[in-house]
Amino acid sequence: MISETSRALVKLALAEDIGHGDATSRCCVPFDAQAIACIVARMPLVLSGMSAAEEVFRQVDASIVFKPFHLDASVLPKGERIAMVTGPARSVLTAERTALNFLQALSGIATLTKTYVDLVDGTGARIVDTRKTPPGMRDLAKAAVRDGGGHNHRTALDDGILIKDNHIVAAGSVTQAVQSAKENGGYLLRMEVECATLSEVREALIAGADIILLDNMDTDTLRQAVALCRDRARTEASGGVNLNTVREIAETGVDFISVGALTHSAPAVDIALDFE
Amino acid sequence: MISETSRALVKLALAEDIGHGDATSRCCVPFDAQAIACIVARMPLVLSGMSAAEEVFRQVDASIVFKPFHLDASVLPKGERIAMVTGPARSVLTAERTALNFLQALSGIATLTKTYVDLVDGTGARIVDTRKTPPGMRDLAKAAVRDGGGHNHRTALDDGILIKDNHIVAAGSVTQAVQSAKENGGYLLRMEVECATLSEVREALIAGADIILLDNMDTDTLRQAVALCRDRARTEASGGVNLNTVREIAETGVDFISVGALTHSAPAVDIALDFE
Amino acid sequence: MISETSRALVKLALAEDIGHGDATSRCCVPFDAQAIACIVARMPLVLSGMSAAEEVFRQVDASIVFKPFHLDASVLPKGERIAMVTGPARSVLTAERTALNFLQALSGIATLTKTYVDLVDGTGARIVDTRKTPPGMRDLAKAAVRDGGGHNHRTALDDGILIKDNHIVAAGSVTQAVQSAKENGGYLLRMEVECATLSEVREALIAGADIILLDNMDTDTLRQAVALCRDRARTEASGGVNLNTVREIAETGVDFISVGALTHSAPAVDIALDFE
Amino acid sequence: MISETSRALVKLALAEDIGHGDATSRCCVPFDAQAIACIVARMPLVLSGMSAAEEVFRQVDASIVFKPFHLDASVLPKGERIAMVTGPARSVLTAERTALNFLQALSGIATLTKTYVDLVDGTGARIVDTRKTPPGMRDLAKAAVRDGGGHNHRTALDDGILIKDNHIVAAGSVTQAVQSAKENGGYLLRMEVECATLSEVREALIAGADIILLDNMDTDTLRQAVALCRDRARTEASGGVNLNTVREIAETGVDFISVGALTHSAPAVDIALDFE
Amino acid sequence: MISETSRALVKLALAEDIGHGDATSRCCVPFDAQAIACIVARMPLVLSGMSAAEEVFRQVDASIVFKPFHLDASVLPKGERIAMVTGPARSVLTAERTALNFLQALSGIATLTKTYVDLVDGTGARIVDTRKTPPGMRDLAKAAVRDGGGHNHRTALDDGILIKDNHIVAAGSVTQAVQSAKENGGYLLRMEVECATLSEVREALIAGADIILLDNMDTDTLRQAVALCRDRARTEASGGVNLNTVREIAETGVDFISVGALTHSAPAVDIALDFE
Amino acid sequence: MISETSRALVKLALAEDIGHGDATSRCCVPFDAQAIACIVARMPLVLSGMSAAEEVFRQVDASIVFKPFHLDASVLPKGERIAMVTGPARSVLTAERTALNFLQALSGIATLTKTYVDLVDGTGARIVDTRKTPPGMRDLAKAAVRDGGGHNHRTALDDGILIKDNHIVAAGSVTQAVQSAKENGGYLLRMEVECATLSEVREALIAGADIILLDNMDTDTLRQAVALCRDRARTEASGGVNLNTVREIAETGVDFISVGALTHSAPAVDIALDFE
Repeated sequence: MISETSRALVKLALAEDIGHGDATSRCCVPFDAQAIACIVARMPLVLSGMSAAEEVFRQVDASIVFKPFHLDASVLPKGERIAMVTGPARSVLTAERTALNFLQALSGIATLTKTYVDLVDGTGARIVDTRKTPPGMRDLAKAAVRDGGGHNHRTALDDGILIKDNHIVAAGSVTQAVQSAKENGGYLLRMEVECATLSEVREALIAGADIILLDNMDTDTLRQAVALCRDRARTEASGGVNLNTVREIAETGVDFISVGALTHSAPAVDIALDFE
Repeated sequence: MISETSRALVKLALAEDIGHGDATSRCCVPFDAQAIACIVARMPLVLSGMSAAEEVFRQVDASIVFKPFHLDASVLPKGERIAMVTGPARSVLTAERTALNFLQALSGIATLTKTYVDLVDGTGARIVDTRKTPPGMRDLAKAAVRDGGGHNHRTALDDGILIKDNHIVAAGSVTQAVQSAKENGGYLLRMEVECATLSEVREALIAGADIILLDNMDTDTLRQAVALCRDRARTEASGGVNLNTVREIAETGVDFISVGALTHSAPAVDIALDFE
Repeated sequence: MISETSRALVKLALAEDIGHGDATSRCCVPFDAQAIACIVARMPLVLSGMSAAEEVFRQVDASIVFKPFHLDASVLPKGERIAMVTGPARSVLTAERTALNFLQALSGIATLTKTYVDLVDGTGARIVDTRKTPPGMRDLAKAAVRDGGGHNHRTALDDGILIKDNHIVAAGSVTQAVQSAKENGGYLLRMEVECATLSEVREALIAGADIILLDNMDTDTLRQAVALCRDRARTEASGGVNLNTVREIAETGVDFISVGALTHSAPAVDIALDFE
Repeated sequence: MISETSRALVKLALAEDIGHGDATSRCCVPFDAQAIACIVARMPLVLSGMSAAEEVFRQVDASIVFKPFHLDASVLPKGERIAMVTGPARSVLTAERTALNFLQALSGIATLTKTYVDLVDGTGARIVDTRKTPPGMRDLAKAAVRDGGGHNHRTALDDGILIKDNHIVAAGSVTQAVQSAKENGGYLLRMEVECATLSEVREALIAGADIILLDNMDTDTLRQAVALCRDRARTEASGGVNLNTVREIAETGVDFISVGALTHSAPAVDIALDFE
Repeated sequence: MISETSRALVKLALAEDIGHGDATSRCCVPFDAQAIACIVARMPLVLSGMSAAEEVFRQVDASIVFKPFHLDASVLPKGERIAMVTGPARSVLTAERTALNFLQALSGIATLTKTYVDLVDGTGARIVDTRKTPPGMRDLAKAAVRDGGGHNHRTALDDGILIKDNHIVAAGSVTQAVQSAKENGGYLLRMEVECATLSEVREALIAGADIILLDNMDTDTLRQAVALCRDRARTEASGGVNLNTVREIAETGVDFISVGALTHSAPAVDIALDFE
Repeated sequence: MISETSRALVKLALAEDIGHGDATSRCCVPFDAQAIACIVARMPLVLSGMSAAEEVFRQVDASIVFKPFHLDASVLPKGERIAMVTGPARSVLTAERTALNFLQALSGIATLTKTYVDLVDGTGARIVDTRKTPPGMRDLAKAAVRDGGGHNHRTALDDGILIKDNHIVAAGSVTQAVQSAKENGGYLLRMEVECATLSEVREALIAGADIILLDNMDTDTLRQAVALCRDRARTEASGGVNLNTVREIAETGVDFISVGALTHSAPAVDIALDFE
């Protein structure tokens, strides 16, 4: 099932791509031509976005039948058929680009996530995402991260408390910020505090933070921070994470590693729709 | 000025990021705290998306003042200040992530486009985009391509006729497809026909195509196709275009080179919002 | 299939007509009464708007069955039954007026268009519409023109370049306007230039216009303009076109004759819904 | 002030006319060019739709200044300047067609209404409209009728009870329909009953109708019906009303004459926007 | 059938309750678990809101089957099963709260209305509602009043004329206000005039009011007012109405008694959803 | 500042109340009459909903000036002036009912909340709300609870994990449900588990619940449950809470007492708008 927001994004995407109608299909393709088409992986990938693709076809023409061959999170080789699409040829052609845009972007996220997850295998660290997602695609991008084996950080500003530098400045100190959050925050939300130094970590622990975000620390410092937090708070590493550094960071013992690139810089994977 | 669709996307993006409200700001930042903040380039980039960023702040809180220091299309060094944002601290913090998400993605597109455009400098070839844009961002992404020095292919299915394999199959032949388009297409739209071989190019020219899309041809074939089309149709190269191949392709004499990666795989550039 | 915009217009039209509900049906018609009704042509007409009418009934009550007896573009005599509508009597009565409003207006456009098209029969001139359509009905009105045998000019501001007086003033001259459009316009769009005199026609041809709009010229001047444009550009006559003048204009050899009245002044045809 | 529905229609109309943007203005008109333009009556007319026109310009670009020279309901000679529009040239050109489409249609309605109203001058009969209005334009069309000196029948299905043939069939008889309406209808709504014969008029009066709709009666019968209703109910003539018959109908003494053509078949009046 | 506005309210209510998704169900309930659940009355009640509840389940997941055991307006004992809901467990749990919120509030209104209606039994007075309804619930709340045996006053500002103090002040006098309403008001709307004293009642009767709203009068004055109005206008009592006073007020002979509390202060009734 | 959802609810509420326009004001109140009006408390109350009321006036007519005399959360005596509203008389009258509907309902919630909060004064227990809020009013109702001195439970299904009977059944046991939530739930959300007996409390504590919801326990059992949870989890009492029982419940030592009636059954307070 697809969320209301995702449905709205599909509608927006179709509106901007169709405009007053598919000029080419209307003038070249007979009104009653039927199509049988396959969506095919043109490179190895982790699949994600199937519900969005299906929604695209459904919104364009409810008479199109979308038959999936694989579920989200499947690891597929090059050439694998992902789904079969049958229905009026004009409608299938009109929907094609928008459906593929979703699949290519979301499978791109899942595929990149899996690369990160595989790199930290066995360390106990979890790869998590951020709020740096393509506008309107929050739910779909977060699901793609899960499809790639990653975990989700908070999904929005309302389902977690993450106190960063600016909040600390505004509140006066870490202690005051955490205190204020305990007093006024919803009691079902944990509190995470961003720290750049070990002394900030100590202050956050004393103040009662549930999770410590270790920002841009080298691995030595990370290791010390993790030791400080043992049994008192969970730890998350952030900043400077890439495919070359992620394993070393994971081996410091942090619980979570957040990677913005998962959702803001994953290259699209190549997926095509071929008429049979 | 920002299009209605872009405005709708900003609204969707804010809704998904804010939910019931910014829990952290509400519990840590005093109600009446004011902020002065700067948006800063953390790496060299070509700027794009300023109107979207401004719209984000405006939608969150009309009392926020967004003062740009640079226009879209500006080439900025690392550390350059992009804009100043002043207003209620809670509102600025609530808007921050969504505004940056737009700026980072769109400046990423402009920056990558400029790299391609620079590589073909002097050849006369134009770098053009495709419809492979992030859902809902068509207008903004197309503008970002222009900001990077590229040109736009059609923006939607309704403002150009591009006859591809599937249309040809459905119509029976290139000749029939072009004929049908001439008969039924709007007379203000040119006709572009995708060709994979030189014999298809010849047929398309005879049928009366205005532009020939040369799909996945090697540079030798491209050169021959360009020669065939001289004075009869314009030419566009597509497929297999990357930073290593684009110059060689441009030197074949094609008029346009379309690059899907400009909009579907441009990595986000790093941009931050710092409280003063 | 009906476009998203048309669907939105149907929704708007029903909302404004129903308000809090059909007071008369609710208080006079039994809750469970079923209706069998026919939509009937009360005068000879060219049918258009069937998909809009069907959408009206569907939106009011998905259980209504709408069975068409004729397709759009059919030429019907007085008294001909257009469709049968069966379902809950209250729902049919609630939908009746809005459905008829669409059918009467759109069939009115198709009917008037056919009159114009018949008048130019054999001349080779095509009757085309303008952007002077009832607000929100662009897609439906353009389809009605096609149903009447006419052709469509551009559907919106984004799918064609039409340079008129004001653009020429702003650009400095016809030559500059056309040059600027060639440089910056999408390369899949043709360029049409409005000319009021033969010398303007000459300048536009030299500048490279694809189509020349001959505005408010008498038939002698039209004939000379057509001669000038032969093999260099297509021609469109505009202004002063009515049922008395259209044949003479068509005989000047112009390719297109655009008629605003098709969509802004077509009288509604009489169509009724009768309970059986 | 303009209603929410009308605002929504303006938005729909602009969306369908602008699409991805005004290709001509963008490529021919300098970014920073300013325009001073006048909206001018090209023929004598009764003005209506000024708030809709203003809303169009406002939605396109809030920096456009719309300065009206006349109010709705003004009777204007050919050549009269209606309003001045100043602002960015591109924005004014983008808004022009949609603004004029509203003004031309609505002033067309007001102008035709005034013709009818003038024809019945001195008879005491009021010219009233119907629900046969262009989809989405109910509020604006009803205001245009008032601008032309006409009066409004109910605006929607919820603000009046009008019992027609089909309701009578469904209810069993006039008496039962009226009885049922008295029992279940809102007590702030009057009841109007459609009658085709004098015996139906008698039955409706006995049942307690507040207003009698005299459908398609010749003037002799109308006169007798009016006599029957004196002091017991008001009367409305409907059907077969046109510019030739309206005076004679009015002289029968009916209170109201409803004319569908006012809103479904009024020809657009000619109004232009000229750059100064 | 449910109105468009009610459908929109359901959508709004679900959006605000679901946000990015039901965190608990997603992490605790297996993806493919199916549920059979019953909606049960936890106290005696008059049922209302079944179509809204059904719409909630439908919007959350179209595969949920909602099988009602009773219709709106049914009087149910404690423990009675209202409906059976079967479908994916996660979806049922996600929809539960919103569906119950509608049922509890609307059945609360129906239940309270019935209490008032029963109290005036045999007097001939009708219990009517006001426009003091929960925002967005106008249609549903008015239906709930009917389900409880009450009648509806006007549903909105456009389907009735009710002249209150402020209108009288603005118009100059009761006489002028009524005169102005007769001249300019739609002729299908009756006119009700609010009066606080017997002399105001006399003036309103002379001016020609159809209904007199007797505001905050004691029962003696009410009785005199009713006598004054006999055969000339209907009467409505308003103000100071509660469960203790309503019978006495009804016995004064007024036609209608309007009670704001029906819709603005009805306590929710207790209704639960139990998994089988 | 008001949330997007609340803005949407205001829009819905105005649409349903205004329809095609305020018939009474249009026919009785001169077009250009200006009003000065005061919103007045007709009984003692705790104020809430001022931003919603202001938004109502703003949406109806941006030229209305709304000047508040008190902020939300103020405790006001009978007769106190809440705000002054000045602007076009017709607009003020059109907005009046909808603005008051919001103020009366929300101040009703705040007022009832304060009564509960005062009753538990000194016990350390916090009064919290539930998700049983009027559809579409979640944000406003939760703010009203805070205005009355209460605290908020989770705002939606996505910002807290609350495991209830049905989830436990679906998961197999409390232990499995909690385990599953730990594995799959967002790590920024705490976990609350509903328990009906002391043995369930013990199991939930061992499983690692952060908060225990003590459902429908008598005060003796509550006291024992609180003792069990000391230093291991926070406690929330729920069920059977009313003005007579709340103090005794608070004295058992629970941390939170959730009261559905705060938002689903608070009677509206009496607030009026009087023209000066």
